[in-house]
Amino acid sequence: MDNAIVVTYELACKDAEEAQMAAVAIAYEQTVELPVDFPLNEEITTRIIGVIRQVRQIGDGLYAAEIAYAAEITGGQIPQLLNVLYGNISIKNNIKLTGVEFPAQFLDNFKGPNYGIEGVRALTGVYGRPLLATALKPMGASPSELAAIAYAFAAGGGDIVKDDHGLVDHSFCGFKDRVIRCIEAVERAADKTGRRCLYFPNVLAEVGVIERQVEFALSHGAPGILISPYIVGLDTVRSLAVRYPIAIMAHPALTGTNFQAPRHGITPSVLLGTLFRLAGADICVYPNVGGRFSFTLDECSRLNKALRGGLGGLRPSFPAPAGGMSLANIAEMAALYGPDTIYLIGGALHGYDKDLSLGSRVFMDKIRGFFSERVETPAANSNAAVSSCDINAGSVNHVSVPKIHMAFNEDFRWDGVTPKVYKTGGQLDFKAVTRHELIGTNEEGADFDLRYFQIEEGGFSSLEKHVHVHVIICVRGKGTLHCNGIAYTLRPLDVAYVPPLHVHQLSNDGKDGPFGFFCIVNHLRDKPLRP
Amino acid sequence: MDNAIVVTYELACKDAEEAQMAAVAIAYEQTVELPVDFPLNEEITTRIIGVIRQVRQIGDGLYAAEIAYAAEITGGQIPQLLNVLYGNISIKNNIKLTGVEFPAQFLDNFKGPNYGIEGVRALTGVYGRPLLATALKPMGASPSELAAIAYAFAAGGGDIVKDDHGLVDHSFCGFKDRVIRCIEAVERAADKTGRRCLYFPNVLAEVGVIERQVEFALSHGAPGILISPYIVGLDTVRSLAVRYPIAIMAHPALTGTNFQAPRHGITPSVLLGTLFRLAGADICVYPNVGGRFSFTLDECSRLNKALRGGLGGLRPSFPAPAGGMSLANIAEMAALYGPDTIYLIGGALHGYDKDLSLGSRVFMDKIRGFFSERVETPAANSNAAVSSCDINAGSVNHVSVPKIHMAFNEDFRWDGVTPKVYKTGGQLDFKAVTRHELIGTNEEGADFDLRYFQIEEGGFSSLEKHVHVHVIICVRGKGTLHCNGIAYTLRPLDVAYVPPLHVHQLSNDGKDGPFGFFCIVNHLRDKPLRP
Repeated sequence: MDNAIVVTYELACKDAEEAQMAAVAIAYEQTVELPVDFPLNEEITTRIIGVIRQVRQIGDGLYAAEIAYAAEITGGQIPQLLNVLYGNISIKNNIKLTGVEFPAQFLDNFKGPNYGIEGVRALTGVYGRPLLATALKPMGASPSELAAIAYAFAAGGGDIVKDDHGLVDHSFCGFKDRVIRCIEAVERAADKTGRRCLYFPNVLAEVGVIERQVEFALSHGAPGILISPYIVGLDTVRSLAVRYPIAIMAHPALTGTNFQAPRHGITPSVLLGTLFRLAGADICVYPNVGGRFSFTLDECSRLNKALRGGLGGLRPSFPAPAGGMSLANIAEMAALYGPDTIYLIGGALHGYDKDLSLGSRVFMDKIRGFFSERVETPAANSNAAVSSCDINAGSVNHVSVPKIHMAFNEDFRWDGVTPKVYKTGGQLDFKAVTRHELIGTNEEGADFDLRYFQIEEGGFSSLEKHVHVHVIICVRGKGTLHCNGIAYTLRPLDVAYVPPLHVHQLSNDGKDGPFGFFCIVNHLRDKPLRP
Repeated sequence: MDNAIVVTYELACKDAEEAQMAAVAIAYEQTVELPVDFPLNEEITTRIIGVIRQVRQIGDGLYAAEIAYAAEITGGQIPQLLNVLYGNISIKNNIKLTGVEFPAQFLDNFKGPNYGIEGVRALTGVYGRPLLATALKPMGASPSELAAIAYAFAAGGGDIVKDDHGLVDHSFCGFKDRVIRCIEAVERAADKTGRRCLYFPNVLAEVGVIERQVEFALSHGAPGILISPYIVGLDTVRSLAVRYPIAIMAHPALTGTNFQAPRHGITPSVLLGTLFRLAGADICVYPNVGGRFSFTLDECSRLNKALRGGLGGLRPSFPAPAGGMSLANIAEMAALYGPDTIYLIGGALHGYDKDLSLGSRVFMDKIRGFFSERVETPAANSNAAVSSCDINAGSVNHVSVPKIHMAFNEDFRWDGVTPKVYKTGGQLDFKAVTRHELIGTNEEGADFDLRYFQIEEGGFSSLEKHVHVHVIICVRGKGTLHCNGIAYTLRPLDVAYVPPLHVHQLSNDGKDGPFGFFCIVNHLRDKPLRP
């Protein structure tokens, strides 16, 4: 099997034969979802079902099975990848997902982190040592109280301050107010220190609201956000990373159900490491060895490697161990984790002294003692220089620059816009219609497209319906909109609206020359159907 | 604490004192995320931190702790609800979430299932007995092969046929082709049987694509979809249920990490029952007792109760046990689960005879033997009668009807549209500008708004920037667009585009009367900022 995703599962089985059978059952369950004795044709057997690469004993009653899945069955998308890796078998015991390797071609579907380790460093201007981060808390504090904490931490030389992951758009502490005040606080501290402390607000909200919060954060100067990928969905994170030039710090909330059963779940290195990075996490927060949660040192090391090591062309991500760190063990942490690490320190830092700025300075001095710090001028946020090609571009590769001004010419043409045939393909009837694509084909990043259509005398558009709506502005001549059996005469600058699934058609039944109108539609929309 | 969400956790502890301490630690961890001895002000202590209602012993080394959380801290949204219920403590062992009760005021934030048990029955026209469902598989089969299975099942009298949850938009079996063929198959069978078999395609795709697939399914006659909420995110399901008049069948893929550790995770009745229903699942698929997966009978019964029992004003959902059913135990299933159940039968049905239509008939006859079936004319899909008020309406309650035709009057006014002040609030300067809201304020369900602005001689709009883009069409007089320091003269029917975060302003510097232009923007957008 070419172009295969190779997955390692640890299987608790009584002997090698049982392990082999268990591996085959997984290869069927995660693809065709049928018993292994179900009769299937050869194409499905060879192309769809997972292939057992090897099954080897790794402990007492413990086997490692390598299964190769055709990358094709994931559809190149994260939700189905999760489903193939562990969807149904998550409900079975004695199967632990411990490793995954992707072919280069599969990884090409993904952009990964926007910043990565180097990019986050460039935002701070700090090289050569671990970064120091803390969280704003507690829930219930007011925006100005949280901003005061942000200021003290930044003034003491801290590098990144993030919201606690439970701070949302609360009635008692609104998202926007918090963002504005905390940004102002870290900028004020920067004026004093000459250093830049990054503020990452927590974005945990409903579908649609998440995007608005990211836009708000970006446009108010926050270079990144904190998000909980397992709660909002990994693909939501990917979608944000692709649409916005934002740094993403991923929080492990709700992932812990994977880590508690000894023979079950997805290991931290695969889930928080490889998969979070694939989705676009620039920084991955995880419970450090020795903290109040409980990863082992081995787990932490494997996770760090998954974040920083090779993964196609994807940028390396910063590990951000949280918990279990104090002034006493910074030396040990430095030796174990190296410089490309973010120390996320809460309790030990806040508990050092009532003056957080002092605590931050003391921790930072301690960190500096083990590394050779190098400081440069911090880079500006990407959004300061963003063009429409970077924002909202669904595709990583394709870029074409939209025009700012399209002058109108008297014959109803626009500079740089070539009229096209109204429709190609499909089986819908129409006559004497041309189409001018004004907005929507050049990565403008709008949620809508603007087109101009012109219908000559005696012509008509196709009779059709669809879920998306039309908004029409007549600008030339006179014509008729037929909508669910009612005819509306349209004259210049009349506006019309076609509701979802209303059967409609536009026609030019007169002798007054061409009928021309703008038509605005959603950028993402369903295809027209016959009535 | 009024208006509290009361959560039950099972704690494995050595004695009552330890259990009490563990409960208090949870109440802190899930709210302020601080150690219990951290000094906090009284408002946070009384308003934010969870309150221990009781801790009682329920077994050897096992305690049930009831913690009341203020509903306010969830922000009324599902992602933060999940976070408060189990976010951080998912990473700790010996804590199992076993129950949750919501105050009525919290439930008012949610619409829940669009159809529920009665609504799904109305679509099929079948009352008084369990419904029979099956899955289309295997992955690798072509759309026409899958459609042939759908036809056979429907012709044999089956009620619901769904895609296997691993069927996505594959190169070898495209989503659209599959939907069209399977809908055609069940409709052809309906012509023969006089009964309606519902087809639910699987929607598992990227953010943005999911919505297009739902729209495609709806507009092609599918009344519902299959989706895996734990993979795409529970709030994605809520968002689909609110935006589209679609029935939702929820699949448990990836949830199983909650169910394997004896003292850890979220129980099926809470996760697949209460929470999936809250998000809008009309039907919940789960691994039946006795199947190849492993829920107990007790678990299944509790889950059925969570789906069908009282939950504010939310419609009851259909339990859809899968696996472990055969002709031999239909009697037992009937006695245990009652009529309001969907039997999702795969292997036993397909294995009965090469002719699936025969198998379906035999199973259906067996089911009918234990119940009094009543048949009515199936209801049409909601989408057949949908208006723009039902689709894309973010709010459940507010409905205002958009106009289809807004005639233009010569003084640059539109019927039914009252010009308004350009901006209220904010501190941005402007002069002599009026605003006409044409599309966007009446639940039109478009992703964009259409406004007309008019600037009198000497007037100007505010100098501002934002992430969302503008598309401008000049329709009256002459004016200037200033965009990142460049001035563009706009004349009637010139089109202009303002890219993200470009500083811009429009002005009427001439003596030629008013300058008027349409401006199209995303419906969801960030607020303008000073440059």
